Amino acid sequence: MLEDDTIVAIATANGIGSISIIRVSGNEALNIALKLTKKKELKNRLATLCSVYNLSGEIIDEALLIYFKNPFSFTGEDVLEFQCHGGIAISNIIMNEILKCGARLAQPGEFSKRAFLNGKIDLTKAEAIANIIEARSEDAVKLLAKQLKGELTNFVNDIREDLLFMLAYTEVNIDYAEEDLPEDIFQQIENKLNKITIKLQDTLEASKRREGLIEGFKVAIIGKPNVGKSSLLNKLLNFDRAIISDIAGTTRDTIEESVRIGTHIIKIVDTAGIREADDIIEKIGIEKSIKAVEEADIIISLFDNNKECDNEDEKILTLLENSGNKEIIKVLNKADLENCFDKTKLDNFIELSTKETINPLIKKLEIILDSNTHSDDMTLVSTRQIEAVEQTLHHINKAAEPLQSGELEFFAYHINEALLNISNITRPYENDEMLDVMFGAFCLGK
Amino acid sequence: MLEDDTIVAIATANGIGSISIIRVSGNEALNIALKLTKKKELKNRLATLCSVYNLSGEIIDEALLIYFKNPFSFTGEDVLEFQCHGGIAISNIIMNEILKCGARLAQPGEFSKRAFLNGKIDLTKAEAIANIIEARSEDAVKLLAKQLKGELTNFVNDIREDLLFMLAYTEVNIDYAEEDLPEDIFQQIENKLNKITIKLQDTLEASKRREGLIEGFKVAIIGKPNVGKSSLLNKLLNFDRAIISDIAGTTRDTIEESVRIGTHIIKIVDTAGIREADDIIEKIGIEKSIKAVEEADIIISLFDNNKECDNEDEKILTLLENSGNKEIIKVLNKADLENCFDKTKLDNFIELSTKETINPLIKKLEIILDSNTHSDDMTLVSTRQIEAVEQTLHHINKAAEPLQSGELEFFAYHINEALLNISNITRPYENDEMLDVMFGAFCLGK
Repeated sequence: MLEDDTIVAIATANGIGSISIIRVSGNEALNIALKLTKKKELKNRLATLCSVYNLSGEIIDEALLIYFKNPFSFTGEDVLEFQCHGGIAISNIIMNEILKCGARLAQPGEFSKRAFLNGKIDLTKAEAIANIIEARSEDAVKLLAKQLKGELTNFVNDIREDLLFMLAYTEVNIDYAEEDLPEDIFQQIENKLNKITIKLQDTLEASKRREGLIEGFKVAIIGKPNVGKSSLLNKLLNFDRAIISDIAGTTRDTIEESVRIGTHIIKIVDTAGIREADDIIEKIGIEKSIKAVEEADIIISLFDNNKECDNEDEKILTLLENSGNKEIIKVLNKADLENCFDKTKLDNFIELSTKETINPLIKKLEIILDSNTHSDDMTLVSTRQIEAVEQTLHHINKAAEPLQSGELEFFAYHINEALLNISNITRPYENDEMLDVMFGAFCLGK
Repeated sequence: MLEDDTIVAIATANGIGSISIIRVSGNEALNIALKLTKKKELKNRLATLCSVYNLSGEIIDEALLIYFKNPFSFTGEDVLEFQCHGGIAISNIIMNEILKCGARLAQPGEFSKRAFLNGKIDLTKAEAIANIIEARSEDAVKLLAKQLKGELTNFVNDIREDLLFMLAYTEVNIDYAEEDLPEDIFQQIENKLNKITIKLQDTLEASKRREGLIEGFKVAIIGKPNVGKSSLLNKLLNFDRAIISDIAGTTRDTIEESVRIGTHIIKIVDTAGIREADDIIEKIGIEKSIKAVEEADIIISLFDNNKECDNEDEKILTLLENSGNKEIIKVLNKADLENCFDKTKLDNFIELSTKETINPLIKKLEIILDSNTHSDDMTLVSTRQIEAVEQTLHHINKAAEPLQSGELEFFAYHINEALLNISNITRPYENDEMLDVMFGAFCLGK
């Protein structure tokens, strides 16, 4: 599906660097490059140093040109890369000449879209490319690199194959009931179905647990007034000043700031009011804590060593007990002051004092983050992917009953829906494929 | 002169883009690339899509690798380019793996320095590369592209050859006075000397006239208090808001701001006080004008149509008359008010009113800028180059007298000095070269 027009964009970041890349894709890409370099030919994939001329024939730069002949290019079309000298003026000047030659400015993501339309990448890879550029931690990069390499594509394909296998056998059974089929075929299908269910459930769970991997894990600091939340927040924000981001946006009434911990990024959920004056009434305090716990992946809960465990602390402890599978770090703060807090209330905690570093907490955070990220479980990286797996799982569950009762049409319907949903992760499902498998495996066409 | 260590740097601008380039140069560049891609080989100049792994063997990206085998690379050493996905995390992660493999972070300009040391580029090209990245106007880019292509190198080489020719004949005459030499040889030398002098003088003049081409031509606005300087300044600054730079630095007591006019950049020299309250005494006003005129390439001089030409105006007119070869635009401002100014005082002027656009002035500026830039004269682009040409010219002038009087040793001394100076523009002068020419042309070694 080759597009008619030729698109161009500066592919490198905007600013002063020693090299910029201008990327051109489409039918006219090679002609444009030959015209602007006054060359007779450019060899496929061979980096070639060329003078670049404007349409008036004046030299405007020396650039390294690389021609990727279709279909062996990123987009699947003819692609030309101009590696010109960096700087804002020079790359814009060359791009303008390319536009004058008839190319048009690419839309955001249009190169990747063409790559998808031409079958060069599937949707999982397109999403990995989009995310890897924005990625801010090494863990995120590694995860996305695996997806870029096709890990999720392979995962989806394996499940597709299994589902196609089931569907093929079922359809044969429906249409050609007289044919000889293996006797234990439905037992085989049931076993496969169970395996797929477990695989998809594991993936969903792992993905949800690691949701924060790309954008940063959400960390909430809770505790009653005066326990030291603001002070801890400031220490965390200053922990790795060099990379504290300014992306701080206002989501509902919370402010998020990012900090790097080891190879990870955390986003500190600062529920409005945490930095407020401390005379807020207890009820509001607890409500805010409930909300913070709901939103966060990791909760840092502060208790005051210098005060007795009171009603509010008890409420927070109950809240933590009922928080499901959130990661919780209990901190006994002001450990340098006289101990008044009943430590037995906290089964596992770390001690901090406002006068010392927060290194014990950082250490603890790092262990939790490591355990949540360093895993070989398949991970879905977008809501789109998660929804597709949830839908697949839904239909697989629905298919179990008709399989038992022998209502093969219903079974086939749900398996087909599951197939459509899992296929959407990588590319739209095409029905001929199922036919290919069916006929290929069974030789019914003979 | 291959350096021992291998250097690495991110060559593209820092920020979010779809591609980043990491450049590695040195003996270990290829080994590092093979190690991180797990490839057996990389073919010279052939863009190859590779998975990139960290040293723990985890995949971290897919990148396009290009290997430039020494000496056919930018630096003359083995060079590897990693074209990885854009984004700050990903390129730093890959660069860190390269550093772990034993490369070290490159110093600013170190790739170009190696290219020079290895004879891949001369100093003029090194300067063109440095400048083209910072260039902000199309004219500057074109000029530098010509220099990058070797225009100045060729210019220098032509003069070197002529000087070498003179020197060779002179040395022969000194050492082998008995040999038969063409009779008119000294006339020939004198003619060559005159031609070189004219060539160098033209170049110096053209270069000084076009000094503002790269950084922007300096424009000063002068005129007595209340004539409308601030208003004009603001209109100029707003003329092409999109590209007004923030580079505004404080040079001595002036502030400069940049504006684009057509394909040019101008820097408005705003002498302190121009925006000050208007009650400054006349003397200070005139002094400021004198200073502004000295610093500027182009002077916009404002006169008030609504007031009679007074003593201060007369002083400014005298100042303009004595400004040498500066470009001057006289503006009769407040043209919408009643005419009181004696127009015959201004032989050539444009009329503006504070209520209308400044388009007539922009037009006039553009004509001046075009005439100063659109020329095929050889242009020197750095103080270093200008000083070298001035020194060359100085010694050529000094050589004329001893040539007349037959004091060939003195003549040879000055020509040799001229040769050293002109050679410094591109590369250090080596004396064997002169010998090569001498023996090559005269076959004295037979």
